[in-house]
Parts: sequence; structure tokens; C-alpha cells
Amino acid sequence: MSKGRVCLAYSGGLDTSTILKWLLNEGYTVVCYLANVGQEEDFAAVEEKALKLGAEAFVCEDLQRELVEEVVFKAIMCNAIFEDRYLLGTALARPVIARSQVRVAERYNCQYLSHGCTGKGNDQVRFELAFMALNPSLKVIAPWRLPEFIERFQGRNDLLKFAAENNIPVSSTPKAPWSMDDNIVHCSYEAGVLEDPDKTPPKELWTRTIDPVDAPSEPQEFSVHFKKGVPVKVVTGNTVATDSVELFKLLNKIGHDHGVGRVDIVENRFIGLKSRGCYDTPGLTLARLAHLDLEGLVMDSRVRELRDQFVTLTWSRQLYQGMYFSPEREFVENSIVFSQRSVSGVVRMAAYRGNAYVLGRSSDSSNLYSEQDASMDSLEGFSPMDTSGFIAIQAIRLKKFGLQKIKDGEPLSKS
Amino acid sequence: MSKGRVCLAYSGGLDTSTILKWLLNEGYTVVCYLANVGQEEDFAAVEEKALKLGAEAFVCEDLQRELVEEVVFKAIMCNAIFEDRYLLGTALARPVIARSQVRVAERYNCQYLSHGCTGKGNDQVRFELAFMALNPSLKVIAPWRLPEFIERFQGRNDLLKFAAENNIPVSSTPKAPWSMDDNIVHCSYEAGVLEDPDKTPPKELWTRTIDPVDAPSEPQEFSVHFKKGVPVKVVTGNTVATDSVELFKLLNKIGHDHGVGRVDIVENRFIGLKSRGCYDTPGLTLARLAHLDLEGLVMDSRVRELRDQFVTLTWSRQLYQGMYFSPEREFVENSIVFSQRSVSGVVRMAAYRGNAYVLGRSSDSSNLYSEQDASMDSLEGFSPMDTSGFIAIQAIRLKKFGLQKIKDGEPLSKS
Amino acid sequence: MSKGRVCLAYSGGLDTSTILKWLLNEGYTVVCYLANVGQEEDFAAVEEKALKLGAEAFVCEDLQRELVEEVVFKAIMCNAIFEDRYLLGTALARPVIARSQVRVAERYNCQYLSHGCTGKGNDQVRFELAFMALNPSLKVIAPWRLPEFIERFQGRNDLLKFAAENNIPVSSTPKAPWSMDDNIVHCSYEAGVLEDPDKTPPKELWTRTIDPVDAPSEPQEFSVHFKKGVPVKVVTGNTVATDSVELFKLLNKIGHDHGVGRVDIVENRFIGLKSRGCYDTPGLTLARLAHLDLEGLVMDSRVRELRDQFVTLTWSRQLYQGMYFSPEREFVENSIVFSQRSVSGVVRMAAYRGNAYVLGRSSDSSNLYSEQDASMDSLEGFSPMDTSGFIAIQAIRLKKFGLQKIKDGEPLSKS
Amino acid sequence: MSKGRVCLAYSGGLDTSTILKWLLNEGYTVVCYLANVGQEEDFAAVEEKALKLGAEAFVCEDLQRELVEEVVFKAIMCNAIFEDRYLLGTALARPVIARSQVRVAERYNCQYLSHGCTGKGNDQVRFELAFMALNPSLKVIAPWRLPEFIERFQGRNDLLKFAAENNIPVSSTPKAPWSMDDNIVHCSYEAGVLEDPDKTPPKELWTRTIDPVDAPSEPQEFSVHFKKGVPVKVVTGNTVATDSVELFKLLNKIGHDHGVGRVDIVENRFIGLKSRGCYDTPGLTLARLAHLDLEGLVMDSRVRELRDQFVTLTWSRQLYQGMYFSPEREFVENSIVFSQRSVSGVVRMAAYRGNAYVLGRSSDSSNLYSEQDASMDSLEGFSPMDTSGFIAIQAIRLKKFGLQKIKDGEPLSKS
Repeated sequence: MSKGRVCLAYSGGLDTSTILKWLLNEGYTVVCYLANVGQEEDFAAVEEKALKLGAEAFVCEDLQRELVEEVVFKAIMCNAIFEDRYLLGTALARPVIARSQVRVAERYNCQYLSHGCTGKGNDQVRFELAFMALNPSLKVIAPWRLPEFIERFQGRNDLLKFAAENNIPVSSTPKAPWSMDDNIVHCSYEAGVLEDPDKTPPKELWTRTIDPVDAPSEPQEFSVHFKKGVPVKVVTGNTVATDSVELFKLLNKIGHDHGVGRVDIVENRFIGLKSRGCYDTPGLTLARLAHLDLEGLVMDSRVRELRDQFVTLTWSRQLYQGMYFSPEREFVENSIVFSQRSVSGVVRMAAYRGNAYVLGRSSDSSNLYSEQDASMDSLEGFSPMDTSGFIAIQAIRLKKFGLQKIKDGEPLSKS
Repeated sequence: MSKGRVCLAYSGGLDTSTILKWLLNEGYTVVCYLANVGQEEDFAAVEEKALKLGAEAFVCEDLQRELVEEVVFKAIMCNAIFEDRYLLGTALARPVIARSQVRVAERYNCQYLSHGCTGKGNDQVRFELAFMALNPSLKVIAPWRLPEFIERFQGRNDLLKFAAENNIPVSSTPKAPWSMDDNIVHCSYEAGVLEDPDKTPPKELWTRTIDPVDAPSEPQEFSVHFKKGVPVKVVTGNTVATDSVELFKLLNKIGHDHGVGRVDIVENRFIGLKSRGCYDTPGLTLARLAHLDLEGLVMDSRVRELRDQFVTLTWSRQLYQGMYFSPEREFVENSIVFSQRSVSGVVRMAAYRGNAYVLGRSSDSSNLYSEQDASMDSLEGFSPMDTSGFIAIQAIRLKKFGLQKIKDGEPLSKS
Repeated sequence: MSKGRVCLAYSGGLDTSTILKWLLNEGYTVVCYLANVGQEEDFAAVEEKALKLGAEAFVCEDLQRELVEEVVFKAIMCNAIFEDRYLLGTALARPVIARSQVRVAERYNCQYLSHGCTGKGNDQVRFELAFMALNPSLKVIAPWRLPEFIERFQGRNDLLKFAAENNIPVSSTPKAPWSMDDNIVHCSYEAGVLEDPDKTPPKELWTRTIDPVDAPSEPQEFSVHFKKGVPVKVVTGNTVATDSVELFKLLNKIGHDHGVGRVDIVENRFIGLKSRGCYDTPGLTLARLAHLDLEGLVMDSRVRELRDQFVTLTWSRQLYQGMYFSPEREFVENSIVFSQRSVSGVVRMAAYRGNAYVLGRSSDSSNLYSEQDASMDSLEGFSPMDTSGFIAIQAIRLKKFGLQKIKDGEPLSKS
Repeated sequence: MSKGRVCLAYSGGLDTSTILKWLLNEGYTVVCYLANVGQEEDFAAVEEKALKLGAEAFVCEDLQRELVEEVVFKAIMCNAIFEDRYLLGTALARPVIARSQVRVAERYNCQYLSHGCTGKGNDQVRFELAFMALNPSLKVIAPWRLPEFIERFQGRNDLLKFAAENNIPVSSTPKAPWSMDDNIVHCSYEAGVLEDPDKTPPKELWTRTIDPVDAPSEPQEFSVHFKKGVPVKVVTGNTVATDSVELFKLLNKIGHDHGVGRVDIVENRFIGLKSRGCYDTPGLTLARLAHLDLEGLVMDSRVRELRDQFVTLTWSRQLYQGMYFSPEREFVENSIVFSQRSVSGVVRMAAYRGNAYVLGRSSDSSNLYSEQDASMDSLEGFSPMDTSGFIAIQAIRLKKFGLQKIKDGEPLSKS
């Protein structure tokens, strides 16, 4: 008799194949789940392998559209970034994967959810917090945190031995000396040789971007059109994309071809460890810069200041830490959407050898930028004398400060 | 009899020469002041012109070292940036210039300070707020905000006519169709043809960086060494710089040669107008990236989070808005210095065609990054079972949230 | 021929009567406007006086409901407070008064708005920023900032002399040695003898609250019911109020009778001066405490933390500084409303001799508080072992910190 | 042979006596530790009981001075408060207790630390995070999170049975139907009958404050003197206290006698549960109000704004969550001290029947408040015309906002 039914996030690799077989051996029935979030994958081969190993069923869901529209576009709308450099490519995908996996588990009457995340990383936290919010009645089996499992599988050799014993096919391609995770947003590289933070990633590591040195010798121009903060059209040469997924893929292609979006950082995982990660994120890097630039033209300065300080940093941290299905993410995201009501317009850009440049920007709908107002040569509608009053009032506090310093024998004019 | 003595910030250009002569005509005695903050300038020619036009004295002070050590290094220490993109090149220089000008005014017994800033810009605010804090007893003459002055000089033609009438020599080089301001940190470009935010800046605009397209075809490697957040050594090839000004100039040269640090934005001036500015900031762009990267390795995550949200944004805004000589800038800067106690180490980088890349980083003094801790393969000193408890406790709130949503008929699992 | 038509905020007092007559003498046509925001006032007498002095028309609008529902309830929803103590009674009323005055000006085809605010206070800023946002085409006449006006009226004697010359009736009641402003929310007292911040306000100053020493010797119990953050019912004894204005007035009465809501502070005016103000704010003090308490029961902790830090402080400052009609206030207020979706329930309280106490609170709709969960005696659904993991993971950073301190020779255990 | 030596936080009560005996039965040697943080306690009786039960040694340390000077005064300096109402009485004491216990454990060569905190509360987290930072090599035994312990002791009856079997004396005084924790700062009451958040705490619950109804019918006046944010003198009638502990006790007495400082709230524990707590905190309530008030007089407005938003909330949360021995607490506390450089002066107050009132405040050292500046009647050194310019510049953005609204068909003047 089955111990129950498990919905296992299954990638077809050695780790999750081992988990699949181990769960079966333990007496569970297993439904394998694979999300299509735009990664490079032979989905049919994964399905075949799962069923051959004994999965009761295999389900693959294409989540690219919900990933792009529900989450990635929110990231663009708030210029999301973690610790000033990481565009959150992995973290953005986790909520839609977890939600889909829970839906599949519910459909197949599973009592358990399982995954192959390690016990030191962010992803276990992201998946499981999402699972618990999405359906608190489902239980989680996290083999890499089960004493019996980690005792048995102490290294790759133990996995290979188990594979041989259990007829798990093992890829003959040698494994890269680091681990990777990719989706429509980016590919991440970590662990293995990258654990030495002073070791430069080898040229062949990067999969989503051409090496800038090998990129075309001519810049490629393109434009990104926004409506209420959302990209609605990308144009380059004769190519025009207006569908959300298509335009995002077009940005990915431009970024890829010109080597834009590589980042190599040491970051702070949620559980308190520092970790080195490399990411190439071509399209989102371009979209983020375009959006940031357009906001300069059309967003009120004070709204922007509040949004930058309270919303962008907070939403980014929430996503990084797996707090997507939380009241606080909803609270913050409500502000993001509201802040974008006037963010419509076009940004013209060029990509060239690892970098992107803004060439110009315009907006039909906003009145905030005015050439006449900005012009140093025009005094139409502006009285410079007002500025004197403005400065004088601002200086009231500062004069007192300077006088107090003089009184205290520490004049500010002393360098 | 003189109406009093004015210390005028004098650049030798048409505007401030006009102001000099106008002040003299009005009956003031004028001491001309010129700061050397690392700009391209024929200082001797400016002095000669000032004296020839009738200045009582001409004083030039070299402020490069105090600019770099007192202000620019603080900007590096907190990764200062305004509206996500502008590195504050102009704003950083204003406090040291203002302070020096006040010192000169005091030395020459001036009753007035004067400058040639326009009535719509940030610089008038920055200078005057500094003046008033530094020495509240000095009065300010801001000609471009005086009705009689702006009525008389309504355009460049009026200035040229006045120059002809008053024997003010006018440069025969045609004026660039934009205005520029440079110092050791950057050169800024604004106004004129740039007032159309959709017009791409012409190739010849940029003076501090080579066009990336024309940059060397080989990346240049270099390393930046930090001690308590301050850059203390820069090495590239056989070149080593350890003096603060020298190492900053070396970073400028590397950035210049590889076209690093160009930014073109629409920003929000303090007085509430939007304005388009282009900036090339080679060395500070490199130093900022190096510093940011090192912090990933050696700074506690929670300190960083607080610093990013409260200190970086606040200090940057204070500098942008001319609030350097203020109690709040002192308050925030005290935190910056404290936050950098552990930020020591080396960052290896490469510059290539408009971009800079981190190749690796290391620190002898910090224990925060540990390859063993970070490694997915090692469980030394780490119990993965702890993570289960961590997740379970974090999920207490989230489960309630999910259950409430189910009860309210809006389950989170519904996409 | 008239110089134009002015809509003057007219209170019937000596100041605004002088302004009315002065405007008429200057050749303007004047429409007098008086807002009814719940202040003590003989409205008919003010009207009669205005018309007698020569106003073309007199308009009084009852704004109590829009003040309470649009603004005061928002203040309650976010627990608004300025500098930890001032409940913003004056500031809350300004936006609705300004908006109504603009509407009246538009209805009467006025080209000008005028008011009697002094040149050093907050109210001039609040009114005029509102005017300019509401209708940028209307011009403002602020007599107390006009050189000719302030030169002519240098003290109360000048005003009395002008009144005598112009047949302006002057009240025979001696003027209080401070200035007052009241509305349905509070009464404020400032200036005059209060300008010495070490002088205790005299017993007779307070008008909206009984002296706690003279209050009833028995506490009065009452309850406040909230729905989505808005008070919807107040009950005390047999009295029940459900209408917004009525229930707020009932809270005012309870607070009044028991001397609740007196505050005496030195605050920081927007223009940079410090100023001493006394306020008695009975009903809002009670409503704020009730709301704050209910949020403890029904609001998610992390949403609350974000709201407290970013929304409450920001909204309060915006209101204080007259930034009501601004994109940033709309931005922040959108968050306030969103944050209150679950804030429904009842708070039972008592008022007694200057203070209010919470006696208990309950909510039918929220699942966040659970006696079983909270109980130290129950482990139903809670595994204490999880806490060990939670602590261990939280401690990863802290252990490194402690070890670094030991290594640096500054062990934390040294006191 | 002993399993090792444990330093147990021992209070003499049934819980920790059971733990002491249980540890001995398990084969550990136990050193009992009791902190004197100002609680009501018969210290000699606790010592006698510990030794009689078999403790190897008993150590009691008087920590009142370090608690007051190192932690409580920092709380006063930043006006610390958690969730707007709780003054953190318990949380403030935990760091000094943990530090002292670690010192004792080191002195006695213990390998273990133990405590009697429950598995659902904040204190276990506070103690253990502190232990791990202070000495990461010490291990923690938390019986109330050990499966074997909690299985054996499922309720008070099991404890009483174990006591009878092990000759543990049990107090004959009936236990209060809630749990209490007191120190020099406050007494807290939670659990038991208080778990129903709608049940009013009974009159006899409060131990540190007289019921306001029973308080004297005359207000008691007193003054608090501060130097750089620290209270240095308290005076009432003929009583003067200048020693830190003495002056704090004097404030406690004043607050006690007049029933000041009672709070009853539902708060959010760090581990994510909501919990109801009652606290009476007489002296700190008075000191906090005095300090807050003085800051109004002497602190720069902008520094205060930054401090309120970033420092006060953050430090309070850090203390609540047990993050005292952390880099981030050091980072924030550094700002607190810096912010207080000018906070010197005297606040005159009165306490009366549950409330405290500020009667006046003064400072010799600060120039920030000026009667002349504040006065509405004086224009000395102030040009009201400057305010016009100030308002006009502030309005630039707002006018554009209003015009855009009109263009969009949603004029702001529409209510």
C-alpha cells in the first residue's frame, strides 16, 4: 500500500531522478512535475525518463506567460534589484513554479510536495514558504534535509552508485564544474569552482550572452515602448514585437547578441550565508534600464524618491527571500502599480559589447518635462527671484547650525 | 567710495567676466576667486584676465586633495548615486569650493559673495546654502536673480555687446551648443541642444571618456585595494598608485581609455524642474563598482540592508540638494564611516569598451565569507535540519494568510 | 473700475476684517468665504459683518462631513501623528477648506484668492500650495507678506486705528494672550505668552477638554467599532452613533468630559522655525488609540512594520507640510487604504481624568490572533523544535560576528 | 561521571527548579545563575533552594547599573517603542542577563547554558541569539524544546508530581492566573486568563503602578535634566537624584504613585505569533516623554525626521527580536549617540492619575529655539517675502500635477 502520493519537482537530472526512485522505494506514489519557464530543456526526454523510472504521471506546464506578465513585468515596473546588482532571475520564477506545482498536486490528490533543493540555499525557502501559503494542508518532503537521505548520499559517487543499482540513466556529458539554473529571465551559475570568490568565471561558463569581446562591432539600436510601466512594444530594425513573451524574448536576443547583462557577485542568502553567484540576464537588464530612464522623464520626483526608498528595495528583498505569497508583498505591489500610472513613453537605446546606452526618450502623455521650463535661456513662467526666497527659507536651519558651530569653536569653514 | 568688497567665483568665461565688470561698474571692489578642482583650465590666463578687467585680487586654490579625500571618498564609501544613475560629480565639488571661497572672502574682508549660477539650476542652491551655513554674516549677490541684471542681459547678444563696450576679451573659439562643468570627478553637459531629451548627444560631446567604439580591442585589467572603505591602492600592469589623488587619477585614466562612465539622464532638480544632463565619470564609476563588490564579500547583510535603504539614498540626496553643511549630513556621514570598519580587501577588475567587469575579490581581514560554509557540498558546522525549523517558523504567518484567502474565496493557488 | 475679484478667507476677526477693507480700498471686489469645519462661531454675525463692510457676497460652506470622512478618517487609518505627539488637527482641515474656497472662487469668477495667514507660519504654505495645485490660474494675495501691508500694520494698534477709521466693529471681549484655531478635530493655541516654551499654559487656555483634575471621578466606558480601518460605530451607555460626523462628535464629547487629548509641544514648522503649540484633540486621540489597538489584533506584523515606517510618518509629514494635493500624498494614501482591508473589529475602552485605556478588543473577521496559538500551554499545531532551527539559522551571522570580535580582541562578553 | 557542567538561569520557581533537578538526574553538574535586574525577589531564599536541590554553585550578579546605563538610557535616547506602545521592558534586560550568564559559565568552565523559557516566546530567542554571539562554543539546553522533556511535563500537574517525587519545595501561595516577569524597568503580565484579548486585566494584576483611580488627588511636579540625551538629574520637591540608578528609581516611584505607564496590547512576537501582553512601566514612561519633549526644543528637525524613521524603529525592533549582540545594533546605536550631542536641558512635568504632562522645557546650550524667531509679532531677521519664493518653488511640481489632473478630466477641485 502506498504511503501517499507525492508531487515531485522533477528536472530529469541525477539528483531528482535519485529522489524519485528513493521516494518510490520508500513506498510513495510519485507524480513528476516539470515547469516550463523558458529554460533549455528536452521536455519529452524528461517525461520519458520520469515514466520509465516509475512515476505515476508526468505533468509539464508552460508558465512563461504568467512568469513574464505577473512577475517579471512587476520587477521592471519597480526596477527591482537585490543588493544593487542581482536582477533576481531565479527568485522571480519560483512563485509561479510553486503555484503551478501546488495546483498539480491538488489535481492529482497528492498529500506531499517534494523538491531537490539543497539545505543551504535560497530555493528551498522560496518553494516551501510558497507551498505553505498556497496550501497549508500539503506536507513537504525535502530529502536534502532528511538525516537518512543525506547520510546515504554524501557525495556524487553515492548518487552514481544508486543510479547504477536502480537503472537510472546518467548523462554521458561531463557535468559542468558548477551548478546552473535557467529560465526565460536568466541563467545562474554557482557552487563548484565558483566557490572561490577570487576565481574569474571561465569564458565558457556564460550561456545566455555572447562574450562582449566576440560581439558585433556595430551597436544595435532598438526602442522599448511602455504603457503604465509595462513594456508593450520592442522595435529593432524591421522587427516589431508586441506580445509580452515575444517582446521579452526579443530583448533577450538583443542582449544575448551584444553580451549585455553579466553579473558576478557575492550575495547574502536569506539563511545568513554569503554565496558567490554569476548571472547573465540579457533582456531584463535592457528592460530595466529603459524603464528607469523613462521614469526620469515622466515620474514625479517625490513619488520616485518614496518608491525608490521603500518599494523597490522592499519588493526586491521579498522576492529574494521567498515572501511572494505574503500580505506584505501584496501591500508593496499595490504601490508599485499605483506608481506607474503615468509611466508611458518610448526609450531609444543601443546595445554594444556588453553595455546598453540610452539614446533618447519621449512621452506623449506626461507634462512633467518641459523644454521651456528646463531651459536656462527661458524665464517664461518662472521668476528667478522666487529661488532667492526658497534658498533663504531653506537656509534658516543651516544658518543656526553654522552659528552654533562657530559658538562651539568648530566653525564649518575650517577644513 | 566702494559699496563694499565682493568675493566673486570667477571662471574667466563671458558670464562671470560680465558679472565682474558689472559689479565694478556698480561700485563694488571685487576679489576674484577660482577653485582648482581638477578641471581643464589655463589658470594663469584666467588670473591675467581678472586683473586686467579690474579685480582687486585674484586667488586660486587647489582643492583637489580635499575634494577627493573629504567628499569623493565618502561617496565611494556609501556607493552614492542619485536617482539610480547620476554619480553626483558636480554636487560633490560644490561644498569644498564654497568653503574655500568663504575662507578667501574672510581673508580679504569681503562683505559679499557672488557667483554666476543661473536662477533655475541646482548650483545656486548648493553654493548659497553652503555660504549661509559657513558664514551667515556674508551676503550673497546672485546677479542672475537680480531683476535689473536679468532685464539688461536677456541673451548672449546682450553679453557680447556689453563685452565689446567694456573691453572684455571674448574667446574666438565657437561656444559648444551646450554648457559644461568639469572637475576631477566628471564633466557634465546640459542645456542648449540637450534640452530635447530625445536628441542623442553627439559623439564629440564627451570629453572625459573615449567613445567605446574607438576604445582598445583588449580589456585592461587592474585592481583596487580598500582599507575601511577607502581606496588605498590601484594597480594596473606595472603602474601602482597609493596617493589618494594619484590613484583616483589613475582610475580616471583607465576609465577614460575604455570609455567607462557615460550617463545620459533626465533628472529632478531640487527646485522641482526636470532637466536633462549627460555626465562622463570614468574613475568614480570604476571605484564605485569595486567598492560595491567588496561589500558583498565583507559586509554583514543586515548592516548593508540598513545602509542601502537609509544612508546611501539619504546622503546622495543631501549632496544633490546642497545640504552638505547641515546637521543631517553630519548625522548620516557618521553612519557611513562606522559601516566601513570591515570593508578592507582587493577587487580585481577589467575595463573594456564602455563597461567594467569584476574578475574576483578577496579580503584577509573578514571572516564573513567562507568557502566551506557557502559550499553546497559541505555540511561541516551546518545542520540542514535547522533550515526546516527556520522555514516552519517563517511560515506561521504565511499559512494564516493562505488560509484566510481560502476562507475569503480567493485562494492564492488560483493564478 | 475694479482691479478684479478676490475670494477672501474671512473669519470676522480684526485681521481679516482689516484685509477685507484694505482690499476694497485698494480697488478690488471681494467675495468673503467662511468654512464651517466645526469651529465655535456665530456664522450669521460673520456674514452680517462681511456684507456691512462691503463684501460683494458672503459664502459659508459646511465642510464637516468631507473633513471627517475624507481626511480625518485617513488619519485614523494610518495612526497619523507628527513628531510623535501632534495629531495634526489644523493641518487636516486645511485641504478641504482650500478646495472649497477655490470652488467658491471659480463660481464667483474671482481672479484672486486671499487669506489672513502670517508670513512665518505653516498655514500660508498649506493654503497656497493647495490653491496652486487646485487651480494654477488663480493668483494669491497674501497681505501679511506684502511689504506695503506689513509696513502699514506693524502691530495691533495699527489695526485698531485702521478699524476705527474704517468703521470696522471691534469686539469688546479682551483678546486672549495667544492665538487660537479650532475645528471639529481640535483647538490649537500658539503665540503670545506661549512663545516662552517654559511657561506652563494657564488652566483657562484649554477649550475643548475639561481639566483632568475637574473631570468626573468615575471612568466612562465606551466602544469603537471599525470596518476596514474606518470607525463605523461608537457606543457608550445607551448612546449609539453610526453616522461619521455624529460618532466623531460623540468621541469628542467623551474626550472632552474626561480631559483627554491635551498636548503641549515645541514643533518644527515647515519653513524651518521651531514653534510652541498647545492642542486639545479629544475625539481623535480616542479614535487613534482604539485603531492602533485593533491593528495589534488583526494586522499582519510585517505589513504593519512597513506601514509604520514608510506610510504613517510620510503621510503625517505630507499633511503637516501642506502637500495634500500632491502626487506623493495620493501615492501614500493608496497604501493606507490597502493596508486596512482586514482592520475590522471592536475596541472597548475607558476614559478617565486625562487618559484613555483599552479594556479589550475583538474581531470576527480576522484569523491572525488565536488563543490556542498564543497559549504557552498549548502545542497544538506548533512544534517547539522548529524554533531551535529558527534560532540556529538566525544565529549564523551572529556567531561570525562574535567570533570576529573575539579575534579582534574585543569579545562581546566583556561588559 | 558528569555529562558536563551547565550554567542554568535559575529563578527559584517551579519551572526552573524542575529543570535543575531534571538536569541533575540526567547526569549534568549544574551552576545556578540568577541576575538581579531590580526584580522583587528573596535572593537568599533562591540561593538556599538551589543549593539544597543539588546545584554545585549559585551565583547572583547585580546588573541594575549596567542595565540602566548601557541599555535603558539608550532606549531613552532614541525614544524606543515597539509597535507604537510597548516600551520593551523585558527585551531591554535580556542582553545584560545573557552576557552575565555567559561570563559566569566561562568562569565555572561550563560547556552548556540552560534556561526555562517556553518554546513559543520571544525570550528563548533573545537569550540564545545572545549566547551564540557572546560565546559560540557554548551549547544550549532548552528543555521546553526537547521532545523528551515536553512529553514528560505536559502540564502543571506533571511539574507538581515531579516536585513531590524530588523534594522540590513548592510555594503555598496560589499562583497568579498569568505569568509575570519584572525588572527595574517594568513588570510584564501575559498568558493564562490574559490569552483572551477581550478580557480586561483585573485590578489586582498591576504591581508596579497604583490604580489611577486610587492615586493622589494632587498632581506631583518634577523635573528631568538631560545631558547629551542622558538623564542626569531628577528633582521633585526636596528630593534630588543624580546617580543613574537612583534617578531611575525615583522616576519609577513617581510613576508608581500616580499610576503612570500601564499598557495592554496585542503584539507580534518575533516567531510570528500574536500575543497579548500587559506592562506597567512607570519610570521609563516618564523619562521617554521628557526626552521626546526636550528633543522638540533642541534637535534639528531634519535630523529628527531621519532618526525617527530609521533609527528609533530599527533599534526598537532589534531589541525586541533579540538582536542586541549584532553588527546592525552597533551600527544603529552609533547613530543614536551621535544624534544626541545637542540634547541637553530640563523638562518640567507633572504626574497625575495615570498620565504625565509636560509643564515647560528649557535648554541653555541650544540656539535652535528662539522666541524672537518663532514670534508671529516679530519680523527681526526674517523677510516674509522669502516665504513667497519658497512657496512658489515648492508649487512648481504641484501646479503641473493639478494641470495634468485637469487635462485628464479629474480636476482636484472636484470633491
